[in-house]
Amino acid sequence: MFATMGALGLAPTAQAAQRELPYRAPQSGDFTLSGRAAAKVVIVGGGIAGLATAYELGKAGYDCTVLEARDRTGGRNFTVRGGDSTVDLYGNAQTVRFSDGQYMNAGPARLPQWMVTLDYCRELGVPMEVFTNTNADAYLFNESAGMAKPMRYRTAKADVYGYLSELLAKASGKGALDKELTAADQDRLVEFLKDFGDLGDKLTYAGGERRGYTTVPAATGTPGVLLGDVPSASEVFASGVGRYFSFEFGFDQAMLMFQPVGGMDQIPKALTKAIGVRRVQTGAVVSKITDKGDGVVVTYQQGGRTKVVEADFCVGALPPNILAKIPHNLGSGVQGALEAITPQSAGKIGLEYKSRWWELDHRIYGGITETDMDLSHIWHPSHGFHDERGVMIGYYNYDGDADAYAKLGPAAREARAVSQGVKIYGEKYRTELASSFSHHWRQTPHLEAAWHDTPGGPDDPRYKSLNEPGGRVYFAGDWLSYTDAWQHGAFTSARRAVSKLHARVMAA
Amino acid sequence: MFATMGALGLAPTAQAAQRELPYRAPQSGDFTLSGRAAAKVVIVGGGIAGLATAYELGKAGYDCTVLEARDRTGGRNFTVRGGDSTVDLYGNAQTVRFSDGQYMNAGPARLPQWMVTLDYCRELGVPMEVFTNTNADAYLFNESAGMAKPMRYRTAKADVYGYLSELLAKASGKGALDKELTAADQDRLVEFLKDFGDLGDKLTYAGGERRGYTTVPAATGTPGVLLGDVPSASEVFASGVGRYFSFEFGFDQAMLMFQPVGGMDQIPKALTKAIGVRRVQTGAVVSKITDKGDGVVVTYQQGGRTKVVEADFCVGALPPNILAKIPHNLGSGVQGALEAITPQSAGKIGLEYKSRWWELDHRIYGGITETDMDLSHIWHPSHGFHDERGVMIGYYNYDGDADAYAKLGPAAREARAVSQGVKIYGEKYRTELASSFSHHWRQTPHLEAAWHDTPGGPDDPRYKSLNEPGGRVYFAGDWLSYTDAWQHGAFTSARRAVSKLHARVMAA
Repeated sequence: MFATMGALGLAPTAQAAQRELPYRAPQSGDFTLSGRAAAKVVIVGGGIAGLATAYELGKAGYDCTVLEARDRTGGRNFTVRGGDSTVDLYGNAQTVRFSDGQYMNAGPARLPQWMVTLDYCRELGVPMEVFTNTNADAYLFNESAGMAKPMRYRTAKADVYGYLSELLAKASGKGALDKELTAADQDRLVEFLKDFGDLGDKLTYAGGERRGYTTVPAATGTPGVLLGDVPSASEVFASGVGRYFSFEFGFDQAMLMFQPVGGMDQIPKALTKAIGVRRVQTGAVVSKITDKGDGVVVTYQQGGRTKVVEADFCVGALPPNILAKIPHNLGSGVQGALEAITPQSAGKIGLEYKSRWWELDHRIYGGITETDMDLSHIWHPSHGFHDERGVMIGYYNYDGDADAYAKLGPAAREARAVSQGVKIYGEKYRTELASSFSHHWRQTPHLEAAWHDTPGGPDDPRYKSLNEPGGRVYFAGDWLSYTDAWQHGAFTSARRAVSKLHARVMAA
Repeated sequence: MFATMGALGLAPTAQAAQRELPYRAPQSGDFTLSGRAAAKVVIVGGGIAGLATAYELGKAGYDCTVLEARDRTGGRNFTVRGGDSTVDLYGNAQTVRFSDGQYMNAGPARLPQWMVTLDYCRELGVPMEVFTNTNADAYLFNESAGMAKPMRYRTAKADVYGYLSELLAKASGKGALDKELTAADQDRLVEFLKDFGDLGDKLTYAGGERRGYTTVPAATGTPGVLLGDVPSASEVFASGVGRYFSFEFGFDQAMLMFQPVGGMDQIPKALTKAIGVRRVQTGAVVSKITDKGDGVVVTYQQGGRTKVVEADFCVGALPPNILAKIPHNLGSGVQGALEAITPQSAGKIGLEYKSRWWELDHRIYGGITETDMDLSHIWHPSHGFHDERGVMIGYYNYDGDADAYAKLGPAAREARAVSQGVKIYGEKYRTELASSFSHHWRQTPHLEAAWHDTPGGPDDPRYKSLNEPGGRVYFAGDWLSYTDAWQHGAFTSARRAVSKLHARVMAA
C-alpha cells in the first residue's frame, strides 16, 4: 500500500519536498542586451526585509539606499551584548552588563531547517549550530495544577505515553475499536503500543527507565535507582504536563532547529556588509514618503537635519504600525490596510549567571523549560556548554504577560522573574545571578511590536494595496507573509517585492 | 496531588536528580600524614577505562604505566581521518581518503547529558556540541512494508499520533474507558488528545501542517501546499513507521545528545596528555600477566622485543575477550568469568560526499534516517552545516548484518551500502560520493568486539573474580558496568577500580 501512496504522491519525493516556490535573483546580465538600466531604489527600514531587498537588488546593480531609524541594522533581529544600551517607550534606560562573549538574542532566535533564512546563512557564510528547542531533561512546571516540583520532559512523556498506550490497548481488548480497525490492524496497533508506552506483557504501564533515575546506572554495584513511584493515570492527566508535547510537532518548531554561531545578528551584519555600509544610513528617521509619479521622494531626519532621498522606487520595509504613522501620499487604501494590521507584544529577559548551575546541578544542557506561570518559557543557552558563565532567558512571554512585565521596569522585572524561577530551579536561580537585561518589543522605539496580526491572512483583499503597488512604492516584511514573526517571512516577502520591481523595470 | 507527589519524592529535586553515586578522586594529600606512598601501577589497555584509571590514580601521584597494543590510545573511541590506515582480521587494508577537516567517529559518537563522560569533557577542557540524534526532517524507510518512498519523521509522527488520538477519543466517547477513568479525567484526556493528535472538533484526524508541505508557506501569494493526502489508520499502522518513535524516549538516547567538537577522540587525546605521554606505551602487546603475591609482572612485545613492567598492582582494562587470550596466573575463576562474556558485532561505513546534497536537496541538517534494511541506521553529520563536503554514516548495523558487510571487503561494502541508500535518497547518493571507509569492530585486531554481552549483569556472581580481585590485579571496562558500550561505563568502572585500589593502599 505504500507503493500506492508513493504513486499517489502521498510520500514526499526528495526533490519536491518542502522547498519554497522558485525564486530567481535579479542579475546584472539581465540588463546587458535589453538596453535598460538598474534603477535607483530607496528602502525604508533596515530590518531583514529591507536588507534582503537591497541585497537582492544589488545583485543586478540597482543603486540602493537603506534608511534605518536606529543605530544598527537588523530591526527585531537584535543580539544583546555587554555595553549595549536601550531606552524603552516608558523611558527605562538599560546598559547591558553581560560578560565578554555572552549574549542573548532578544528577537528571533531559532531557525527550522526548511526556512530560506538558512539559505541566506549559507550564501553569506554565516556558520550554524543547533538551537536546543526541545530537551528531554528540561523541566515542565504547572504551578496552577499544584505541582510542588518540576518534572522533567522525559518523565512526563513516559507517564503520558504509557497511560495513553495502556488505555488504548485495553480499549482494543474490549472490542471498542472493532468498528474502526480490523483484527490484524489492532494486532499491529497493540504491538506498537507495547513499545511506544513501554507496556509489559500485561499491557499495563508501570514506569521504567524512560522516566529517569535518582541514581544513574554505572559500574558494577550501581545498577541505578529508578525515579520514585509512578503517578496514576488520573494524576498524570490532571497535571496537564501533556499540553506541552505538541509544540515539537509544529512545522516551524520541530527539532532540529538552528542558530547562527555567535548571535542571530550575524545575519544582518553579513547582509549589511554585502550591501555595502555606504548604502546604509543609520539614525535616519523617515518623516515623509511622496510618490511623485515618475519617482519617489523620501524625507528623513538624521543628526538634527532634514534630508531627502530621491529614487525611482521605494520599498517600505518598516513594521506596518510604524509605517502608518509616517505621512505619505499613497492613498487611503494603503493607510487603511496598514491600520488593519495590529501589533503584538512579547518580551524576554536575559539572566547572566556566574556559573552554569543548570549543567552542574540539574544536568540540563540547553533546551526549554515550560511553565504555566507568567514567565511562559525559560530557555537554557544553546551554546557555550561547560563555559564558566551563561545567559538564560528567564522569560519569553507574550500579550498581557509581556505588557505586565514591561510596565514594571528593569529592576522589578528581574526580581519578579527570579522569584518565579526559584520555584523551579531553587535558590541558585537567585544567588548565582550576575546581571540581567530585559527587552519588550511593543515598548521599543521605531518598532513597537514583536510581530503583527493580519486578520484574514496577507492575501486578504484588504491588504491588496500593500501587496500590489499602484504607484512606485512597494512593501515588504514578515507581516506580508504566512510566516509572520519569522525572518523567513521577511526574506520571502522581500524576494517577492524584488521580483515584482525588477519585472517592472525590465518591462518598462 | 502533585504536592503529594513531591512530598513522596515522586518528582525529582534538583540536587538529587540523575547524579551517579559520589566519587572522590585520590589526591596526593591523602598520603601526606599517613606515612604511606603512592604505588606503582601497570595498566593493560589504553582505552577509556585504562586511561581514566591512570588519570585518576595520577591525581594522587601513583606511578602509572599504560600498555596499549595499537598505535594510538582510545580503544574503541576511534575518530577516523584522512591518512589513517587499518587492516582488519580478514586482511582488508584501508587507507582513509577523507578531505581535510572531515572525520567519522567509528566507535562511540554520542553522549547523553547525564553521563559522567561530560564531566570529564568539562574537566579536560574538551568543547561540546549537539549530536543530532533525532531530526523531524530525517526519513523513515521500511522497505519490507512496501514503502516506495521514504517518509519524514514529522509526517509519520503526525499520522501515528493523529490516529492514536482519534481512536482513544472515540473509545472514550463510547464509554470504553469508564472503568479506568472518571468523566472528569476523560474530559482532560480528550482535551489532551485534541492537541496531541491535531484533531478537529469532530475528534477525527485529517492531517495538517505537522505532516509537512510540498511548497512551504512564504510571502503573500504562497500560503503553502500541504503534503499529499493522508493515509488511512490501517495504512499507517501497516507501514510500521511507529516502531522507531520509542528510540528517543530511551534514558540513554533522548535528545539532547552531545559530541566533542572535532571528533570523539578529543577525549582520549586529552586524557593521554593529562596522564603524560611518557607514561603511555603504544604498540605494546601484552603477552603475560603474573601476580607474584607482592607485586605484578606484565610481559609485553614492543618493536620486536620482549619487555617487562614490574609494579605493585595491575589494572586489566582490555576487552574481556582479549584478556581471556593472554596467559596469566590469576586462576580459573578469572578465566571462566572472562570467557562467560561474549563479544558482539557492529560496523559503520563513512561516506564522504563532494556536496552536502542532503542539506541542499532534502533540507536535512543532521539526524538519523531509520531503515528496516541491512543498513539499519544512516547518520547525517552533526557538524559542518553548510560546508562544501560532509561524511555520512552509510550504515551503523549490528550482529549478522555487521558481520555480513564485514565479510564483503571495503569495495563491496561501499557498493552494497550505496545501492541500498539510493533507494532512500536517490542517485546523488551514488554520484556525489567521494570516498568511503568502513570499520567492523568484531574484525578489529586487539579489540574484536563492538561491545559485550554480560549474562546476568556485571553483579552476577560468576563475575565476582573480576569485580573483587583476590590478588593484585584489578579489572575495569564498560563491560563491568550497567552501561556497556558507553564510555560512561568505562569511566565509572575505572573509578570503581581506582577507589578500591586506593583504599587498599591507604589501609596497608
